[in-house]
Amino acid sequence: MEEKLERLDDNGLDLLFRNARTMNGWQDIAVSEEQLREIYDLFKFGPTSANSSPARIVFLKSVEAKERLLPALSPQNVEKTKTAPVTAIIAWDTEFYEKLPKLFPHADAKPWFASNAALSHETAFRNSSLQGAYFMLAARAVGLDCGPMSGFDVEKVNAEFFPDGKWKANFICNIGHGDESKLFPRSPRLDFEEACTIL
Amino acid sequence: MEEKLERLDDNGLDLLFRNARTMNGWQDIAVSEEQLREIYDLFKFGPTSANSSPARIVFLKSVEAKERLLPALSPQNVEKTKTAPVTAIIAWDTEFYEKLPKLFPHADAKPWFASNAALSHETAFRNSSLQGAYFMLAARAVGLDCGPMSGFDVEKVNAEFFPDGKWKANFICNIGHGDESKLFPRSPRLDFEEACTIL
Repeated sequence: MEEKLERLDDNGLDLLFRNARTMNGWQDIAVSEEQLREIYDLFKFGPTSANSSPARIVFLKSVEAKERLLPALSPQNVEKTKTAPVTAIIAWDTEFYEKLPKLFPHADAKPWFASNAALSHETAFRNSSLQGAYFMLAARAVGLDCGPMSGFDVEKVNAEFFPDGKWKANFICNIGHGDESKLFPRSPRLDFEEACTIL
Repeated sequence: MEEKLERLDDNGLDLLFRNARTMNGWQDIAVSEEQLREIYDLFKFGPTSANSSPARIVFLKSVEAKERLLPALSPQNVEKTKTAPVTAIIAWDTEFYEKLPKLFPHADAKPWFASNAALSHETAFRNSSLQGAYFMLAARAVGLDCGPMSGFDVEKVNAEFFPDGKWKANFICNIGHGDESKLFPRSPRLDFEEACTIL
């Protein structure tokens, strides 16, 4: 009989959470298409509302693709993005509900969203953010580091990469093997009592 | 010399992603305060914009607390929430920027958000969603199951639990040991080519 893992051990928890850091510099080690597919084949399983899976990812791997992004970045994000092996634009599909007949086959869920622009926007933004987090933890789980950023001109990114307006950028994330010499000291976190209540 | 884990093995990837399922029913096994604190002490390390950490979690553990939530739920979410050992309201703090002097001590980041309501709302919503995903994967990492839900009346939840308007509910998530006999078959996911592009 197959043994199911009950929980991650300390090394696994360190890898995903306790020792994982947002990287500001990168080693010169490529990230392959196979690795990007492996990350996708993990993070796609994370839960979303009605399995709507609204996130779309544009992986910028070539120098030419990267060059198109750089003018939209805040100055402090340019150098690290230039040197990252891959930069992912985590976007959402404003018409994600068109895929619901495939994704949620047991009910006619498309009209719930297609007829309600506010609900549709909120669902796409919340769930593509959830998926962005699954993406980062999946990347860490397969041994890569992440460097997420919101410091960019979203209108410029949308105009450059999504001129038809169907996809919208949520945030950007460099991935690769981080250069630990470029790390800042870790900033404090809130205490349990500042962030949580038990009723 | 300490050996660092390079990546999770297949059992770890199964636990977090490939075999993890959204649970619809729960075994009668309690979740302790120690477990909730362990989850917090992992997911708090996940990255957020300017380390803003806007998520706030209200854990409903007592029967009385649970009763206050039930009237706000969509009918299909009542029974599973009633029987879950703990239900977490993942919320955000609309005044999260008040904590930035602690969280982001190397710059005066509070005015970036305090003076810009639209940026502040977007940052709180995006980053509390990211943290909600870190929360769920941390719960899975320590051996618990999750059942996230958006099917509830957010105004009712806010009025009942956050009457002063400072915190706002983002989504709700049951946690505990799932009852696998109540699982639905897993729904399809998008193919890599439907969700991702490599440039």
